Amino acid sequence: MQSLQPLFIGIDGGGTKCKARLEDAAGRLLAEAIAGPANPATDFTQTLDSILTVCHSVLHKAGLPAESLAACRVVLGLAGVNVPRVQQRMQDWQHPFAALQVTTDLHIACVGAHGSADGAILITGTGTAAFASVQGEQMLLSAQGFPLGDRGSGAWLGWQGVAATLDVLDGLQPASGLTRQICRQLGAHNNSDVISCCIGYKAADYAKLAPLVLEQHIQGDPYAFAIMTQGLQYLQALLTRLQQSGAHRIAMIGGLAPQLKNCLPTALQLQLSDALGTPETGAIMLARLFYQEVVA
Amino acid sequence: MQSLQPLFIGIDGGGTKCKARLEDAAGRLLAEAIAGPANPATDFTQTLDSILTVCHSVLHKAGLPAESLAACRVVLGLAGVNVPRVQQRMQDWQHPFAALQVTTDLHIACVGAHGSADGAILITGTGTAAFASVQGEQMLLSAQGFPLGDRGSGAWLGWQGVAATLDVLDGLQPASGLTRQICRQLGAHNNSDVISCCIGYKAADYAKLAPLVLEQHIQGDPYAFAIMTQGLQYLQALLTRLQQSGAHRIAMIGGLAPQLKNCLPTALQLQLSDALGTPETGAIMLARLFYQEVVA
Repeated sequence: MQSLQPLFIGIDGGGTKCKARLEDAAGRLLAEAIAGPANPATDFTQTLDSILTVCHSVLHKAGLPAESLAACRVVLGLAGVNVPRVQQRMQDWQHPFAALQVTTDLHIACVGAHGSADGAILITGTGTAAFASVQGEQMLLSAQGFPLGDRGSGAWLGWQGVAATLDVLDGLQPASGLTRQICRQLGAHNNSDVISCCIGYKAADYAKLAPLVLEQHIQGDPYAFAIMTQGLQYLQALLTRLQQSGAHRIAMIGGLAPQLKNCLPTALQLQLSDALGTPETGAIMLARLFYQEVVA
Repeated sequence: MQSLQPLFIGIDGGGTKCKARLEDAAGRLLAEAIAGPANPATDFTQTLDSILTVCHSVLHKAGLPAESLAACRVVLGLAGVNVPRVQQRMQDWQHPFAALQVTTDLHIACVGAHGSADGAILITGTGTAAFASVQGEQMLLSAQGFPLGDRGSGAWLGWQGVAATLDVLDGLQPASGLTRQICRQLGAHNNSDVISCCIGYKAADYAKLAPLVLEQHIQGDPYAFAIMTQGLQYLQALLTRLQQSGAHRIAMIGGLAPQLKNCLPTALQLQLSDALGTPETGAIMLARLFYQEVVA
């Protein structure tokens, strides 16, 4: 097996899917693939299954035999491994690779965004999280999850929109463009309809309503404006904290990052950097670094 | 069985316990008792079990035989029966009583508070809810539950306190008396401790932190002040809406009502009425009314 050319796989795993990138020793992209959810804090067995599926998939796409798995240096960046016992369980996995390193999805995203171990990221997608890695020290902020945290995220924006809509339907506030649109999207005519509709809602369901809040914010809707003001205030506080951490490069990433960034003061926008690469490229970089250290 | 003297049982059932009151035909209190949870939307079988247990208990305490159940006119005021299919399932129960009427816990609380079918209540305990019954029309407000609703309630106050504490531990805001006290009560030293502690928290767990917010509000703590301002603004909007409903008497009830009422503008406090009786007395009144109608 040791005679095989080394291969590198970087994997970004989260609650909805995992993405893999395969590169050869010279840094050439051989293939990319997507498979199912990989959050070991939620479902450990499914995570291993998704990881093996996505690895077989990139090898197959690259025209390589399944046995090449034994030549792969793999870095997994996974949601959920900030919990120490979950991290331990992943590390203890009897994997079929040449080498495996497990870190957080935030860590690989940060390395992907900045091309080195140093830097900071603010993620705003379905959820919100902030991460800095400066001189070997990692700092994780806003990690409490929905609904206790995630202010400014898609889930939080949609959720706040629903709360405002219920106040209107309870007769406490006048209707607005936002609350009318939320009722239309939910097919709801009264507060009881909205409650029935949202009773089993998870973060991803609320996040589907976030575009309405973003649109109506631009239209000047008073509720959308109040919600966005509170969300942006929080995101700005997180960015200030990341700047204080000593990170020279800070990037906003995630599905809502472009739109939310545009709502920040221009002076602050100018202090932010664009992400250089994806989380998977960050994972590959860590895999290569890890392999070099092992070889040296 | 028809020769037995009629008896009246009023039951107030909720997610943590149910309380029963037994009266004779002349309106004399014979016994009171408490049994387990009775929220048919959460656990239907347990609800029936708790109801039968509490009924047997009041009869036993009053020195009456178990067969007297067949002479009882029972009114159940239950959480969860505002959902139509839950209400239907309770109505379809093949009960052992002379007669059974099922209504909401809010309805019996309102009748208990005002001594007649007309009036309105604002409940602030672990949760928040508002209810008005005016000329046969019932209006239910703020029924979305925790954490989408329940603003101003014990659960919401504690929850907001935890959110403020996490912002402090993330380095976004300076510590205060409130955030230090919350850390002490949770035995937490950093954000990861707080998140681990609160990960499985339900409304009742957060409500245990509400006294800290109320105390610190009086001390002028800035976070407690901001939380209370938002909560009180919501409660005041609900009270205004209840006044608009045409209810002449409005009472604040529930575990936090005395303390929250004291924080409202005095002019508004003076427009509120004291509750005349408990939800169980309200249920008994409805049972008697129902029986008179059946006899007539």
